[in-house]
Amino acid sequence: MKIRSEFTRRGSSPVHLSLRPWRVPGLACFAAAIALMASHAVAQTPAAAARELPAKTVPVPDTVSPQMQKQIAAPLTSTWNVIPTTAEGWKEQVNAGYQAAMKALPALRETLGVKVEPMTIDGVKAYRVTPAAIPRENRNRLLVHVHGGCFVSFPGESGTVEAVYMAGFGGFKVISVDYRMPPDHPYPAGLDDAMTVWKAATKMAPPKNMAIFGSSAGGNLTLAMVLRAKQEKLPLPAAIAPGTPMSDLTGAGDSFHTNAMLDNVLVAYGANCDKRAALYTNGRDLRDPMLSPVYGDMRGFPPAILTTGTRDLLLSNTVRVHRKLREAGVEAVLQVFEGQSHAQYYRDVGAPETKEAFTEIARFFDKHLGK
Amino acid sequence: MKIRSEFTRRGSSPVHLSLRPWRVPGLACFAAAIALMASHAVAQTPAAAARELPAKTVPVPDTVSPQMQKQIAAPLTSTWNVIPTTAEGWKEQVNAGYQAAMKALPALRETLGVKVEPMTIDGVKAYRVTPAAIPRENRNRLLVHVHGGCFVSFPGESGTVEAVYMAGFGGFKVISVDYRMPPDHPYPAGLDDAMTVWKAATKMAPPKNMAIFGSSAGGNLTLAMVLRAKQEKLPLPAAIAPGTPMSDLTGAGDSFHTNAMLDNVLVAYGANCDKRAALYTNGRDLRDPMLSPVYGDMRGFPPAILTTGTRDLLLSNTVRVHRKLREAGVEAVLQVFEGQSHAQYYRDVGAPETKEAFTEIARFFDKHLGK
Repeated sequence: MKIRSEFTRRGSSPVHLSLRPWRVPGLACFAAAIALMASHAVAQTPAAAARELPAKTVPVPDTVSPQMQKQIAAPLTSTWNVIPTTAEGWKEQVNAGYQAAMKALPALRETLGVKVEPMTIDGVKAYRVTPAAIPRENRNRLLVHVHGGCFVSFPGESGTVEAVYMAGFGGFKVISVDYRMPPDHPYPAGLDDAMTVWKAATKMAPPKNMAIFGSSAGGNLTLAMVLRAKQEKLPLPAAIAPGTPMSDLTGAGDSFHTNAMLDNVLVAYGANCDKRAALYTNGRDLRDPMLSPVYGDMRGFPPAILTTGTRDLLLSNTVRVHRKLREAGVEAVLQVFEGQSHAQYYRDVGAPETKEAFTEIARFFDKHLGK
Repeated sequence: MKIRSEFTRRGSSPVHLSLRPWRVPGLACFAAAIALMASHAVAQTPAAAARELPAKTVPVPDTVSPQMQKQIAAPLTSTWNVIPTTAEGWKEQVNAGYQAAMKALPALRETLGVKVEPMTIDGVKAYRVTPAAIPRENRNRLLVHVHGGCFVSFPGESGTVEAVYMAGFGGFKVISVDYRMPPDHPYPAGLDDAMTVWKAATKMAPPKNMAIFGSSAGGNLTLAMVLRAKQEKLPLPAAIAPGTPMSDLTGAGDSFHTNAMLDNVLVAYGANCDKRAALYTNGRDLRDPMLSPVYGDMRGFPPAILTTGTRDLLLSNTVRVHRKLREAGVEAVLQVFEGQSHAQYYRDVGAPETKEAFTEIARFFDKHLGK
């Protein structure tokens, strides 16, 4: 297998590294990630200023619930650095993820008492996600969800997982957008679809009663949707909840280095997730705020709640958006969960931290949404 | 030199490790910290669940200001694992820190236009810290500051640094408590002094117009003061700002492991700072909420703003307090600065991140304090 890694940094040309074949996943991958990171480092700062960290063993913390300990103790995602070389190969990998998510969904819906129905909105596929009980104050409220999956994974109903959590824990009606994705549909197809749904949704409920949310690529899209709504002078939502957003696809952000190999979900920058993102960005300028929203103008953004974990590879990309929003005078709150890697706050419906994260988001929406 | 490390974990007996002499500071120290962490780990979880991290080089991020890059690029604190063995040795080390802080203070006061005068309040030494210009809305407001220094460092005027930042950037009058410290005065002397000042201060201004703040050990003391004020049924402040609080002296907290050797201020758990804290706790039960406030009952706490950085060894101890406050129904906000190690938000008056951190705290106080 040949692994090709691209780093595109601000204004610099992409660096192409051709690495020799090795076992995947396995310890050899560590060396790969480190080599990638080191080359990244050298281009950036004098080696003297970099921090040399020795190898270390990091235990599972006892400061989280047993359920969360189990997630933290899990091995690295098996495909974190398995990079398909053809569109067909990507589709096979995506399908495996789809099947796994679909298998888990019925029990999740059952536990949370949530119903999911397919729908089409102005030609875009979506899902109507409805909790069994809708509190009075949420009857005229509507949330729009954009799912994660590094812009390529979780098509169809498999993308509704986070929407089911939000509907179930928060008692909100949700429309989850099944936006078009690479390899067949690079940017701007996905964002276009999300905007089509947003425009239509603002006719189903008053925008002041609405929020947009989503994690990872969904966090990127949440932010990009607001940037685009501003640009197109469309109504803005009353609040947003970008979870651990892929807000900077250029590779900038300290936690890409500090949490590399510690985050057991994304594992390292330049690996599988970023290769999927590259299918979305498709050679465009990664500093474009529609691709890396941290570089966007956040003045006039609605109140935002951001969620991440201390081991999250995107910890920096989350806190940087938080600071950027605050600098722009936007009400923005940050929640950082102990020990969690990327988006581990919606993996186990029984973990108290899961309920905590969604309850906080629901409270934030309740505070900012009209009724 | 002989270094003796003690870990006292929840309910378990202290583990004593005798390590062989080595160069301090130097690469050999890495092995030491790792050995300490590994032994800690083994007691806690099966080795299989722990994460094995390879050695790596972490560059200075380009996502922070040049001033902050300089701080991040700085070598590890020279004394991070230099542990005096006598009270006299500690006093010498403390005096070196005192001299360095005193040397820097006049320029800092000058830059921020802040005046510092010694005072005594009911027998406790303190400093009155006054900005040249006090905005109208702050005239009847008063802040109480408890300084950091791992419960042992920054006696006298050298403890006023953070108070000068807060007075200067926020335009607040501040009383900075020069509480008694080990080796001569272990717990509860320092907290007693802080409470004496708090009681007296609530007669100088209405408590609803007051806040308590402080970082590191000062963050611990800020939280402990509220716990004790609750216990003694004293008035509570209208807001608090515990910065990167030493909220858990037992060694629990994921970032003690994940950010070990990355944080260039504290560097590792069980090193110099924790040895100073041990002089304060002096053999007491470290789970006592007056020593490790994360274990305290936070119901009824005033609104709180917490500050930390992504590389902070106390990142976990900060976010855990944030979660705990939220669980207790307290309004609590968290700000996490990109790339910063422990309390690096008040080291360089010229860094934009410094102004940003204190401006956020000042805004939070302005929102919650009466006039």
